[in-house]
Amino acid sequence: MNKPLNVSTFIGCESDYSNSEIVLFGIPFDGTTSFRPGTRFAMQAIRPDSYGLETYSPYLKKDLENCTIYDGGDLEMPLGNTQKAMETILEYTRGLIQDNKKFLMVGGEHLVSFPTIQAAYEKYPDLHVIHIDAHTDLRDEFLGEKLSHAAVIRRCHDFLGDGRIFQFGIRSGTEQEFEWANEHTYLEPFYLNTVKDIVEKLRDVPVYITIDLDVLDPSVLPGTGTPEPGGITYRELLNAIGSFQKLNNIVAADVVELSPQYDPSGASTAVACKTIREMLLTLAK
Amino acid sequence: MNKPLNVSTFIGCESDYSNSEIVLFGIPFDGTTSFRPGTRFAMQAIRPDSYGLETYSPYLKKDLENCTIYDGGDLEMPLGNTQKAMETILEYTRGLIQDNKKFLMVGGEHLVSFPTIQAAYEKYPDLHVIHIDAHTDLRDEFLGEKLSHAAVIRRCHDFLGDGRIFQFGIRSGTEQEFEWANEHTYLEPFYLNTVKDIVEKLRDVPVYITIDLDVLDPSVLPGTGTPEPGGITYRELLNAIGSFQKLNNIVAADVVELSPQYDPSGASTAVACKTIREMLLTLAK
Amino acid sequence: MNKPLNVSTFIGCESDYSNSEIVLFGIPFDGTTSFRPGTRFAMQAIRPDSYGLETYSPYLKKDLENCTIYDGGDLEMPLGNTQKAMETILEYTRGLIQDNKKFLMVGGEHLVSFPTIQAAYEKYPDLHVIHIDAHTDLRDEFLGEKLSHAAVIRRCHDFLGDGRIFQFGIRSGTEQEFEWANEHTYLEPFYLNTVKDIVEKLRDVPVYITIDLDVLDPSVLPGTGTPEPGGITYRELLNAIGSFQKLNNIVAADVVELSPQYDPSGASTAVACKTIREMLLTLAK
Amino acid sequence: MNKPLNVSTFIGCESDYSNSEIVLFGIPFDGTTSFRPGTRFAMQAIRPDSYGLETYSPYLKKDLENCTIYDGGDLEMPLGNTQKAMETILEYTRGLIQDNKKFLMVGGEHLVSFPTIQAAYEKYPDLHVIHIDAHTDLRDEFLGEKLSHAAVIRRCHDFLGDGRIFQFGIRSGTEQEFEWANEHTYLEPFYLNTVKDIVEKLRDVPVYITIDLDVLDPSVLPGTGTPEPGGITYRELLNAIGSFQKLNNIVAADVVELSPQYDPSGASTAVACKTIREMLLTLAK
Amino acid sequence: MNKPLNVSTFIGCESDYSNSEIVLFGIPFDGTTSFRPGTRFAMQAIRPDSYGLETYSPYLKKDLENCTIYDGGDLEMPLGNTQKAMETILEYTRGLIQDNKKFLMVGGEHLVSFPTIQAAYEKYPDLHVIHIDAHTDLRDEFLGEKLSHAAVIRRCHDFLGDGRIFQFGIRSGTEQEFEWANEHTYLEPFYLNTVKDIVEKLRDVPVYITIDLDVLDPSVLPGTGTPEPGGITYRELLNAIGSFQKLNNIVAADVVELSPQYDPSGASTAVACKTIREMLLTLAK
Amino acid sequence: MNKPLNVSTFIGCESDYSNSEIVLFGIPFDGTTSFRPGTRFAMQAIRPDSYGLETYSPYLKKDLENCTIYDGGDLEMPLGNTQKAMETILEYTRGLIQDNKKFLMVGGEHLVSFPTIQAAYEKYPDLHVIHIDAHTDLRDEFLGEKLSHAAVIRRCHDFLGDGRIFQFGIRSGTEQEFEWANEHTYLEPFYLNTVKDIVEKLRDVPVYITIDLDVLDPSVLPGTGTPEPGGITYRELLNAIGSFQKLNNIVAADVVELSPQYDPSGASTAVACKTIREMLLTLAK
Repeated sequence: MNKPLNVSTFIGCESDYSNSEIVLFGIPFDGTTSFRPGTRFAMQAIRPDSYGLETYSPYLKKDLENCTIYDGGDLEMPLGNTQKAMETILEYTRGLIQDNKKFLMVGGEHLVSFPTIQAAYEKYPDLHVIHIDAHTDLRDEFLGEKLSHAAVIRRCHDFLGDGRIFQFGIRSGTEQEFEWANEHTYLEPFYLNTVKDIVEKLRDVPVYITIDLDVLDPSVLPGTGTPEPGGITYRELLNAIGSFQKLNNIVAADVVELSPQYDPSGASTAVACKTIREMLLTLAK
Repeated sequence: MNKPLNVSTFIGCESDYSNSEIVLFGIPFDGTTSFRPGTRFAMQAIRPDSYGLETYSPYLKKDLENCTIYDGGDLEMPLGNTQKAMETILEYTRGLIQDNKKFLMVGGEHLVSFPTIQAAYEKYPDLHVIHIDAHTDLRDEFLGEKLSHAAVIRRCHDFLGDGRIFQFGIRSGTEQEFEWANEHTYLEPFYLNTVKDIVEKLRDVPVYITIDLDVLDPSVLPGTGTPEPGGITYRELLNAIGSFQKLNNIVAADVVELSPQYDPSGASTAVACKTIREMLLTLAK
Repeated sequence: MNKPLNVSTFIGCESDYSNSEIVLFGIPFDGTTSFRPGTRFAMQAIRPDSYGLETYSPYLKKDLENCTIYDGGDLEMPLGNTQKAMETILEYTRGLIQDNKKFLMVGGEHLVSFPTIQAAYEKYPDLHVIHIDAHTDLRDEFLGEKLSHAAVIRRCHDFLGDGRIFQFGIRSGTEQEFEWANEHTYLEPFYLNTVKDIVEKLRDVPVYITIDLDVLDPSVLPGTGTPEPGGITYRELLNAIGSFQKLNNIVAADVVELSPQYDPSGASTAVACKTIREMLLTLAK
Repeated sequence: MNKPLNVSTFIGCESDYSNSEIVLFGIPFDGTTSFRPGTRFAMQAIRPDSYGLETYSPYLKKDLENCTIYDGGDLEMPLGNTQKAMETILEYTRGLIQDNKKFLMVGGEHLVSFPTIQAAYEKYPDLHVIHIDAHTDLRDEFLGEKLSHAAVIRRCHDFLGDGRIFQFGIRSGTEQEFEWANEHTYLEPFYLNTVKDIVEKLRDVPVYITIDLDVLDPSVLPGTGTPEPGGITYRELLNAIGSFQKLNNIVAADVVELSPQYDPSGASTAVACKTIREMLLTLAK
Repeated sequence: MNKPLNVSTFIGCESDYSNSEIVLFGIPFDGTTSFRPGTRFAMQAIRPDSYGLETYSPYLKKDLENCTIYDGGDLEMPLGNTQKAMETILEYTRGLIQDNKKFLMVGGEHLVSFPTIQAAYEKYPDLHVIHIDAHTDLRDEFLGEKLSHAAVIRRCHDFLGDGRIFQFGIRSGTEQEFEWANEHTYLEPFYLNTVKDIVEKLRDVPVYITIDLDVLDPSVLPGTGTPEPGGITYRELLNAIGSFQKLNNIVAADVVELSPQYDPSGASTAVACKTIREMLLTLAK
Repeated sequence: MNKPLNVSTFIGCESDYSNSEIVLFGIPFDGTTSFRPGTRFAMQAIRPDSYGLETYSPYLKKDLENCTIYDGGDLEMPLGNTQKAMETILEYTRGLIQDNKKFLMVGGEHLVSFPTIQAAYEKYPDLHVIHIDAHTDLRDEFLGEKLSHAAVIRRCHDFLGDGRIFQFGIRSGTEQEFEWANEHTYLEPFYLNTVKDIVEKLRDVPVYITIDLDVLDPSVLPGTGTPEPGGITYRELLNAIGSFQKLNNIVAADVVELSPQYDPSGASTAVACKTIREMLLTLAK
């Protein structure tokens, strides 16, 4: 008789790698977090708590059971060495793309979206990014560092250039960042009202969707490093995800900035789980 | 000189049993809870915290001080023996109905509504049930068990039959459950928008109202075993309770699934307390 | 070489006292709190957590960096002696007003607004008070005490008289309090819908704004002594603060009743921080 | 049919007042607490958690079931008025003594021992006090107040005089307090080693025992307002209580300074419960 | 390319089943827990936190890296059906013993030791049990149920008979239980002082060791359902485990009653992890 | 009139820099923490909670009020850049030593002791280090990084060489680390029994004392990243500090690895505060 070692996956994500359409993986990195660390624990909390969900979405009327998703676990991150961390992520993500996988990455702090977006851009030079967040993340540097969670979208602009970044829900930043956005990105402050219109425009181009969960009001998601009051409701986020169904070429996505230990009730982790389920079903065309 | 032993009741519920119109009691049972137990502690948290409320409701413009409500404490539950627990509850509730009491039961997990609805049905064969919940609760069995919190409304359908169950706010279930509901119950997904219309129809029939507090968004009620994001606001629940004032024959009600220890802030317990107050005032015609 | 002792201020509040237009200070007093104490810890949590905010407000399009605000620390409160506490506060606030400072006071329980409003009234006999709160606070006495958080607005009425107090968002009180309000104050229950209209009327008179944070729904601010479900959203509060920009003579304001330890996520403290930032920018005409 | 209102007592304390040898009651007062309040919640946590204990003590080989103990609930305390609070306690305690009850009082902050010891002294002018604590509590005043938790033993010395107070386990105080103790009390610092010897001396005089739970190391009792590292183990406290069995005239006792909310594990509350059980069995000669 | 699904094991337990000497597995069952449930979460917390440990023990001077241990994950438990749960465990454990595995089971509540001890007894009729616990667990029934955590050792006595059970550290039980133990088991109250002597006697017989972690003082292990103050230190437990090295025929062991959610610090989980490591190294002769 | 900005210092540490004998400062760095971050928050919790202590030590019979100690606040750390962080610390500490200050540094993770010991070594080439810790910290590298909390003492050995490092209380490490220690350092496992003897030997040489608070049993200090059960009691640590009074040339010291957020009771922070007080009084010869 033989038996497998104890396996732990997100609910409904038990396909083999080779048979899978989508790869789910975590990046437990929070090395540049300036205020309150803890996003490294996100996936550790998400996997067991995902079993409080159903695999079926009554919003999208789809079921994870009918998808082929592989849960690849979490990348191992070097400690205190941001540059090496970025390289490790870039290399791993390139491998997924070479194997023709779509992927959903779960952070970690937002900086980890920089190498995953870069890897997607390498294959799709026409890449567009939908960025849902409370914060502009457009600083050129933060506390003297170019590689910072507060600069991640600016770093992506370095290679994407103007006209490719679409920001929604933004309610925090310096005056300079808001002015810079005026010239270089599309930015809807406070709300997600224009997601629908932008989706119309991006219908057929390759799209990467990055969701910083702190776009949600802290009442919905207290479990994050920098709670910013005045955010969107969960229904508003669900509506935006509903709009994404019209996008014909989503190449990858991420869900970042859950810090589960700040919300002992588990409600924040449940929010992350449901968002991951909806985004996996969105990727699974 | 003599003095009573230390008494602990819900605020404004200090009537004698014999003089009371309404009986309030708790069922500290969470024996089939699959994910996170703890609803057994609900009443223990609710009673002292109810003193943070006023007895007067500015919504209903009524005061608990003007009602006659008896707080009968909590039933003692046999450990690990679900069948015996159901029998204990059924017997107790039958006694209340024989004594012509209306009652408000506070759970415990949702399964405890099965025997209390059954007892009400025994007296009122024409009973209709208003079911407010995040979950369908319509499984025929769950993990091999017929008596499960995930099957409670299905168990009630076993004796009530079609056309008697009205479900609101539902946002989680299997695809099969939603399909089954299409044929056997009235089900409004996600919202409480049609409560008003249904109340019109049920104006003069005997009605039992069961409120699973997890219908509320987890931002409002993180203190529950299975938080399901995307739920209703507390104002929406208050509006529904406002609609209930038109029902002429509410025979009993329950408020279930508070797990107070998951919300150390006490906000979830306050939500339960206020809901109990409003429902007591609703019962007190 | 010499160096200053370790300084701790609210973000962006580093002006000298003499150069400052506005003084920020805390009153760590919760001596009459009947239910759950802890507002004494508010400022201790607020100062370090304020660094999770930006100094720039995209709502008001103003920046704390362009204001002159002095953080005067917290008053030292005598223990268990409410009368002496009130006198200490009154004396300190009078000093600020004599020095022609506007001030933003951070509580503490709501009773501490009594002496600060009194000091403002002494200088501006024509003072009007905008009161945003979940509770009426209009009791004549509470548990036998005239000086109580539940009586604070009534105590202010003692000297202000009729027609000077404007209450919004109120959703808890005794029937008597609501009736008393009918005759002596302006009171909008549940909502802030008429703030705009009242602001029009008060455009040119001296105004004191007192914000009891428990006006917010407990989902937004669980960190308070007496959470009262069914409150306003943070966006609704931001809108009201937006309306205040039309007031030409705000002489002082306060933000009270944060009890940070009841919300280990820090979201409630973030709400207080952001409200303080917006109110400081509102005071800084 | 009639039924009692919901009763909540400490385990095994269900005697009528008139038949009881001992009265147990709580004083939810923390009005002079300078650092972290919360002892007002002690009894609210202790009663339900006492059911995690057995009524039988294998240390003393006695059982609460064989005693007659009445649980009188908690005194209602006036808010923010320390003087009136002291009077309320004194009056209640005098009543118990007039009825020839022994009592065990549960705090609350340590100041509440002042009126209970005073009441005992009024009947037994020869009263001796055994004081087990981390702190000297011998200040003449604290922050300008005579009635302070930090001055409670000094206040008792005001009427008891020299030679009557026996302090054990003390590991915190000002230099002045330790010097004052040298002249006016018996004080064993850090340990309880000499409890046995002192008990020998006090065998036949009337004794009041006041146990400030913070004498225990904070590892044992983190749930207290002012944790002071380096304290005694629980076994050491059990040994001291064992010694008390030789005292022939214990007239009353108290157990104070549990602040249950600082220890969400409930271990501190369990410590208080077990100490109360042992002390009740000690009183029940 | 193919890759394994995400695997989660206790540190150093990555052997195949077929090559393994020892099997580690969890039983997430807390269905008869009368006071505070939560032991079902033990293994979920233990696996990730075990990576805070080293694989090497400086006490035993052995390393998990040099052992062959298979982590088989957790058994799936039927909800609310205690009888069926017992059967599931018994069947699984019989399978391990048939495959000639030693095993370390991690609870769950103590009742789960009943079927695992039974399975060991079936193979080794001469089985002796070392029982380390705060509680006697010798009730004949508890709240009307024979299958109860409070009766588990009594249930084992049903088939083991007199002279086979050795209890240490016991400090809670009814008077009847202590009397019953006098006649039927070896019981050292409060301490582990005689473990060494008993080990000498049991050197060559088959031994099962069951460790209820609540034998530890709640300061060491607050994360358990029924904390009982006055327990042993962790060094005392380590010494007892050191004594076990002289036993030549330990056939299996268990570590039960961690309830990790009651200790948010993770210290209790660390205690469980270290105890599991030491017991695994003890089994690995 | 002018007033200082709000100042926040450790209790009794209000001297000017120029007049001070000792400098207290914090390093909020936890960038290489592999398991659970959070030591960056230590000083933020320590300063306000230090006011729960007295300035007088009954152990050392000395008072902070009689010392001249300057609280210099916390160093600002670059995010995610370990090398630059080390340089910032080294430079700051060199400045203190040039100004002839003794210092007490409060971490942060243990790696921050590397530059502070280096700075002391630059001035005192004959420096000896007393290292009190649960962990060996002697890895040559950890997860590929030379600069790691798990390698800090090894890094110090790089310049100090053999015979200079004295380790106490060690109970965790790899087999290789313990073997390496055998040849290069003095290491007492598990206990502090030989501190007294070593102090005799080091009486007149320059000594740096580094205390990793996780040497304490997790019952005493649950608030740390990697709790390691089986540690020393607080009394044992106090005894060791008592021994240090015989050292004639302590040049500096540090207290590291408090992670206050893992212990919501505040007991761990109280342990850090008291240790800092005792070490400050130890430095103040």
